[in-house]
Amino acid sequence: MARIKITAFGWVPPFAQGLVRDFRVRWALEEAGLAYEALLIWPEDQESARYRDLQPFGQVPAYEEDGLLLFESGAIVMHIAQRSDALMPSDPGARARVTSWMFAALNSVEPSIQQLAAIDLFYAKEEWAKLRRPSAVDAVKARLAKLASCLEGRDYLEGRFTAADVLMSTVLRILRHTELVEEVPVLAAYCKRCEARPAYQRAMADHLAPFARSKGQEAQDDRG
Amino acid sequence: MARIKITAFGWVPPFAQGLVRDFRVRWALEEAGLAYEALLIWPEDQESARYRDLQPFGQVPAYEEDGLLLFESGAIVMHIAQRSDALMPSDPGARARVTSWMFAALNSVEPSIQQLAAIDLFYAKEEWAKLRRPSAVDAVKARLAKLASCLEGRDYLEGRFTAADVLMSTVLRILRHTELVEEVPVLAAYCKRCEARPAYQRAMADHLAPFARSKGQEAQDDRG
Repeated sequence: MARIKITAFGWVPPFAQGLVRDFRVRWALEEAGLAYEALLIWPEDQESARYRDLQPFGQVPAYEEDGLLLFESGAIVMHIAQRSDALMPSDPGARARVTSWMFAALNSVEPSIQQLAAIDLFYAKEEWAKLRRPSAVDAVKARLAKLASCLEGRDYLEGRFTAADVLMSTVLRILRHTELVEEVPVLAAYCKRCEARPAYQRAMADHLAPFARSKGQEAQDDRG
Repeated sequence: MARIKITAFGWVPPFAQGLVRDFRVRWALEEAGLAYEALLIWPEDQESARYRDLQPFGQVPAYEEDGLLLFESGAIVMHIAQRSDALMPSDPGARARVTSWMFAALNSVEPSIQQLAAIDLFYAKEEWAKLRRPSAVDAVKARLAKLASCLEGRDYLEGRFTAADVLMSTVLRILRHTELVEEVPVLAAYCKRCEARPAYQRAMADHLAPFARSKGQEAQDDRG
């Protein structure tokens, strides 16, 4: 039994496969070289009182390590990073910048991206979504331009790969159904660089594996 | 000269007064008993290359402490909390929960609240905003209900006041132009409890003071 356990979904629709936030934690754990076990949950588990004790909003992932419980992928990646040189430099100035970029990814970049993704993936047929989309795209583009100017001439946000790149590149990945990242070469190259990492590849394979397995099961019991 | 410096706006429109994120940092510093100095910036400074070096998105606040630079209010509050018992318990389990709730405030609760605030404060006359508002309200209500069930029977998110309450209660405050928090008694009581703290009161007075001062100046030079 692994000392670290995370929760992940047994199945999600194709548009969400590769984006669910257990991936961010799997990737951080792979970079840090920490073994873990994924406990698969199903939609009916999410609203259960037992799962709510682990994750107040019924979301994925929750994290357990020798009785220590965490929720929110940002908090979990921070926890892993704080004890791994692979994800967080030891120099105080660099740590401060990495921490700043971690919060920037989740609080200054992701909200506008998530809003556009919701318009496209959940509300595309609604009149308000059609009217809103152009200005939502403009908001995303404005954020991407500022981020790109920080990444100009750098491989990663903090010179070397850190936990900030785990969060920022997975936030950018939410735009995969659009050309918005591709249109900004410095960001396209940054995402490609992050996604080529062996730890990313291993984490993605493990994140996707249950979906492929449950596809068969689903056909049998109509569970999905 | 104080060792800690933060940036704050010299003036913002009334709808934003009390909500700008330097307030979150001022409150955390007051709870931790740390002296600081606020450097006021103006809209024309925000887009300058010099300010962008401090804050990549041109936002407020940026933070400096003996040459250590941070940006993003979440990262700054985390930095302050990690060295202050007043904001972060020493027990590892409690620290994990506080960290989880800090990220939950900014990444699981604030986005839907910020979306509704944008609809009401920036886009109220737009057709898409009118059509979207009911479902945006429902999204906020769903999050508030889950948060309320966690706060039932508790004064604060982690039993005692912590940095998680600095972030969560200021996130809820973004809804002050609605009745959505008042409609959930446990949340209304929680916000009232947070806002009654002497450190909150001092921080709010200092956050608002420049706006009152610059009002006169504004009338003179039409700067605002």
